[in-house]
Amino acid sequence: MNHADPDPASPVDLRLGPGLVLSDPRQAPTPGWVEIVGGRIHHVGPEPTPAVAIEAVSLHDRIVIPALVNTHCHTSQQLGRGLADDVDLLTWLHDRIWPYEIALTEADAEVSAALCAIEQVRSGTTTIADPGGRHVDGMARGLEAVGIRAFLGRSTMDSGDGRPALDCDDLAEALDRQDDLARRWHGRGRMRFSYTLRTIFNCSDELIVATAERAAALGTVVQMHVAEVPEELSFSLSTRGATTVRHLGSLGVLGPRFLAVHATWVDDDEIALLAATRTPVSHNAGSNLKILGVPRVAEWIEAGVVVALGTDGAPSNNRMSMIDEMWLASLTQKGRRVDPTVLPAGEVLAMATTGGAKALGLADEIGRIEVGMAADLVIVDPRTANMSPLHDPHAALVTSMKSENVESVLCEGQWLMRDRVITTVDEAAVIDEARSRAAAIRSRM
Amino acid sequence: MNHADPDPASPVDLRLGPGLVLSDPRQAPTPGWVEIVGGRIHHVGPEPTPAVAIEAVSLHDRIVIPALVNTHCHTSQQLGRGLADDVDLLTWLHDRIWPYEIALTEADAEVSAALCAIEQVRSGTTTIADPGGRHVDGMARGLEAVGIRAFLGRSTMDSGDGRPALDCDDLAEALDRQDDLARRWHGRGRMRFSYTLRTIFNCSDELIVATAERAAALGTVVQMHVAEVPEELSFSLSTRGATTVRHLGSLGVLGPRFLAVHATWVDDDEIALLAATRTPVSHNAGSNLKILGVPRVAEWIEAGVVVALGTDGAPSNNRMSMIDEMWLASLTQKGRRVDPTVLPAGEVLAMATTGGAKALGLADEIGRIEVGMAADLVIVDPRTANMSPLHDPHAALVTSMKSENVESVLCEGQWLMRDRVITTVDEAAVIDEARSRAAAIRSRM
Repeated sequence: MNHADPDPASPVDLRLGPGLVLSDPRQAPTPGWVEIVGGRIHHVGPEPTPAVAIEAVSLHDRIVIPALVNTHCHTSQQLGRGLADDVDLLTWLHDRIWPYEIALTEADAEVSAALCAIEQVRSGTTTIADPGGRHVDGMARGLEAVGIRAFLGRSTMDSGDGRPALDCDDLAEALDRQDDLARRWHGRGRMRFSYTLRTIFNCSDELIVATAERAAALGTVVQMHVAEVPEELSFSLSTRGATTVRHLGSLGVLGPRFLAVHATWVDDDEIALLAATRTPVSHNAGSNLKILGVPRVAEWIEAGVVVALGTDGAPSNNRMSMIDEMWLASLTQKGRRVDPTVLPAGEVLAMATTGGAKALGLADEIGRIEVGMAADLVIVDPRTANMSPLHDPHAALVTSMKSENVESVLCEGQWLMRDRVITTVDEAAVIDEARSRAAAIRSRM
Repeated sequence: MNHADPDPASPVDLRLGPGLVLSDPRQAPTPGWVEIVGGRIHHVGPEPTPAVAIEAVSLHDRIVIPALVNTHCHTSQQLGRGLADDVDLLTWLHDRIWPYEIALTEADAEVSAALCAIEQVRSGTTTIADPGGRHVDGMARGLEAVGIRAFLGRSTMDSGDGRPALDCDDLAEALDRQDDLARRWHGRGRMRFSYTLRTIFNCSDELIVATAERAAALGTVVQMHVAEVPEELSFSLSTRGATTVRHLGSLGVLGPRFLAVHATWVDDDEIALLAATRTPVSHNAGSNLKILGVPRVAEWIEAGVVVALGTDGAPSNNRMSMIDEMWLASLTQKGRRVDPTVLPAGEVLAMATTGGAKALGLADEIGRIEVGMAADLVIVDPRTANMSPLHDPHAALVTSMKSENVESVLCEGQWLMRDRVITTVDEAAVIDEARSRAAAIRSRM
């Protein structure tokens, strides 16, 4: 617990309490109060400060947790939810996802992103990393409307076979387009820009190295899908002489600002390399189970890798909820190792909060409830049939909490959802428009 | 679709429509109407009958599905949710569950069962099989109050080491106590009685054989935990000369009325034996991942085994929702086989409905929306952020539906939940009492 020394004469914007407060996701929540000034945590402790509060919200047995961080969230794919269920990977990609992506307009991308952002808020997430779509301006407008914090990205490729021609820039174009988007969006409100690389199938070594340089110059992260399927390992081995992670290591791009997404198929040496270079990995339990396979996440953590969680996109994980991802990530590793002690609740909560913050270079900004950090908070109501009784409030946040227990959500001290009502946009109108646009996209595919 | 030929002069009790109707869980839902008379499906088809309806509910884009069947649901453990998270199996059993079960009173069991039944209704389930607690009368009262359909059972053992002495009857006592409960509860309202066997560790061959005989005489099912952990296989091999399923086969007790629960660790020959004897298996994806391991469910189905789903108890699956079980069962098998086409939505929905009905001998009563069957129905509202868009309504019932999409629930034509309000009991009062009783149990443990 941290205490500021507030001036009692100076009012706080919002006082929450008394309730259970999860200050550090690795530790059990404790009774206390949270106070907010100017969008930041001003006080957290067992007692409130004497300051006047402009707004005070009583928590009555609620739990306040740091808002979750979704490190892999394809907002442009939201209107494709259900387009590719129960089909093999090649059908998924060639017959469903690529035609969908080609049919998507910028206006569609805006609605897609808004719908996705609403689902994020409803499931307790206020920060996402989008690995890139084609219509970044549309995506950004949809995310800004709902009010969440996002790393934008443009889906970037410069080589390789089989991709829709529309998506293939040459090296200079690929970089220039991203630089242009970075100038427009990086640091605008809650938007940041990140440089992205689709996969090693479609990115030249020149693009990979130049992308890492541009990202470093801007002070942002690189997002790349890495070691997704066994075929990728063979491809990398035959074209680069090493599997993906080893090859990225030899290119010198791995590091704390290189977000390796999935890493479903990595061997022990690659795990050690990710740990040694402090390269964060975004684990997507749902989409991995559905399409890619089951990674050895427990071993990554034992090796010291920084692990974050992500939902992936709606066609590969139809439940775009970080709460479900926590549950799934925990259960999958326990089951794989046949060991109920693997990935205990504190570890999973850390992956979804501080792990995500580290993976995006925001460890001092979000992920914990500490004085000075952004007031990105979720109020959880556990007084429901599905969370009662509450013998172990810490574990319950992973084992029994569901998105229906998310009552209210703050981002930088702004209510994005209050008593289960989205405050920033007309949710029903977004859903209606999303449904009609989705039908139109499908008829164009 | 089936059509009755109703008399237009005779009113129907309830007309639902127009909406999407999932008549057969293996087929996509189609637009239509459902009508109910005397607690049974009277009509289902693309148009309503001309009869007057005493009550009519417009479905506006809702989906009506058969209520789910939970074939393994320890209602007495509900107040123990969160007592045993992230601990190894022996700690789970010896230090947490047994002391909890000893501390539980009959009044506790009643509240525990009521809380569990509320969670079942909220997640679309109207039929459960309880594998047995100690206070059957209390359990039954709690379940009756909420109004769900249940197979009761008394946790039965007559031998073996390590069990709390309180739970060990001799053979005659074990059977007599169950006969007495069967007389009191079997066929009373929505209650049925089933004979239960805890595990082969604690049941003599005499008890196993006599139990199957009594169940057959009553025309009910036997429930038994089978092949849960590798240690059970070694135990059975050393004490009986064969692994559990083989030994049960040689005792002659396997068959359509013997519900084998878990079967986490069975080999190909045992799978073939379960299929050949038409022995149904209750698969519990969540509790298996958490504690027991990952069974080869896809192979069971390929071999022709009747597979049903179940939640197990709250300390071993903190989310007691059949909707989450469907999602988890599907994803776990896809991931295990690294094949997205494994266990498609229709197969999973069948496991949760018709599979459960078969496993409990109720295939002509529940599990489908057909004329003459009980009106156990769930109204799903998919017009939410998490289920939009709805490109594939059939798959969405497994891939994106959550308990928050369950709007209303009928059991035998009676509303148990209407517009998300439990109609039969005061839900908040049950939750409050459950929380205070849970705290008291914990202090007694």
